[in-house]
Amino acid sequence: MEHRSLLENVYKHIALTDSERELFLSLLRKRKLARKTKVLAQGQLCDSISFVDSGALRAFYLDVSGRESTIMFAVRDWWVTDMYCFINTLPAMLTIETIEDSIVYQLKKDDLEQLYRSVPQFERFFRILMQNAYIREQLRVVQNLSMTAEERYNIFIKKYPEVANKVKQKQIASYLGITAEFLSMIKRKKSETLN
Amino acid sequence: MEHRSLLENVYKHIALTDSERELFLSLLRKRKLARKTKVLAQGQLCDSISFVDSGALRAFYLDVSGRESTIMFAVRDWWVTDMYCFINTLPAMLTIETIEDSIVYQLKKDDLEQLYRSVPQFERFFRILMQNAYIREQLRVVQNLSMTAEERYNIFIKKYPEVANKVKQKQIASYLGITAEFLSMIKRKKSETLN
Repeated sequence: MEHRSLLENVYKHIALTDSERELFLSLLRKRKLARKTKVLAQGQLCDSISFVDSGALRAFYLDVSGRESTIMFAVRDWWVTDMYCFINTLPAMLTIETIEDSIVYQLKKDDLEQLYRSVPQFERFFRILMQNAYIREQLRVVQNLSMTAEERYNIFIKKYPEVANKVKQKQIASYLGITAEFLSMIKRKKSETLN
Repeated sequence: MEHRSLLENVYKHIALTDSERELFLSLLRKRKLARKTKVLAQGQLCDSISFVDSGALRAFYLDVSGRESTIMFAVRDWWVTDMYCFINTLPAMLTIETIEDSIVYQLKKDDLEQLYRSVPQFERFFRILMQNAYIREQLRVVQNLSMTAEERYNIFIKKYPEVANKVKQKQIASYLGITAEFLSMIKRKKSETLN
């Protein structure tokens, strides 16, 4: 069924009448994207948020020396955007790219504002989404302070099992805030322990 | 006027009828706190969120070796809690302490849930609050990647002018993710440039 996982995602937190559901779906744009497609490029106006229906995406920051730092991964059933630039309607600081063939539903900023006015339950829905995003970041800060890189890698592969094998090691390393060499040492140690 | 800055904070984003305002205020507990009072201690159940009416607070993580890492400062007109533990009703990971005499209004988790049901506009209010908290964290991650420690210190003293002189240098340094020695070097360089 079209929109099934999107609606399941919404129904986790709010209920909609038929007409509210139809309005919501009418505001979304479905996009089928090949691997390595940018849904957002650094510098480009960030005016939409994407729901990942299938596939996976990666958001990264590219610094002046050309070094990429992975800020987050977004897998099936996640919403992803450069939130700071989306909320403030600014050119994106981040680039968001598919790491495999993906299907996303995109919602424009103006349409989201209309949705808040027409269907106020979406205030609740996005309140919970923002709350989850914020506490995920808070948890990451505390884990960076309290756990070893190895412990954080173990959490990572549990949380994103579908990502671990699809992206470059240096992308995972930059997400964990360690060097690719250090990550490779952790993985070597891990495989020796398992053998 | 009692509650003035609290209500101004709320009215920035939503409107309330008289009875809604009275309900909201009835759920809050005013606390006058001396300097160095803990409003939350690591390990203690985190069941309330605090609005800073006056004064300033600091949230920090204490690691097993006894090292404190400052996670955030909360000044007048801010809301502060250990959000991860508040939302999940867990023992706090963070300690939150006043850095000067302060007045806060506290709202319990259960009362907030009741408020969402009785006055749904608070979904909007906290949606915007969570959104701002999340984008602040996102901005901090990107600034850590894209700016020098000196640039981040300059942003810090502009954003929290009232904090800079009230806390220990090592607390500011740990918030910026640098050593106290490095911060002192930055400040020395800055004062030499100004002279």
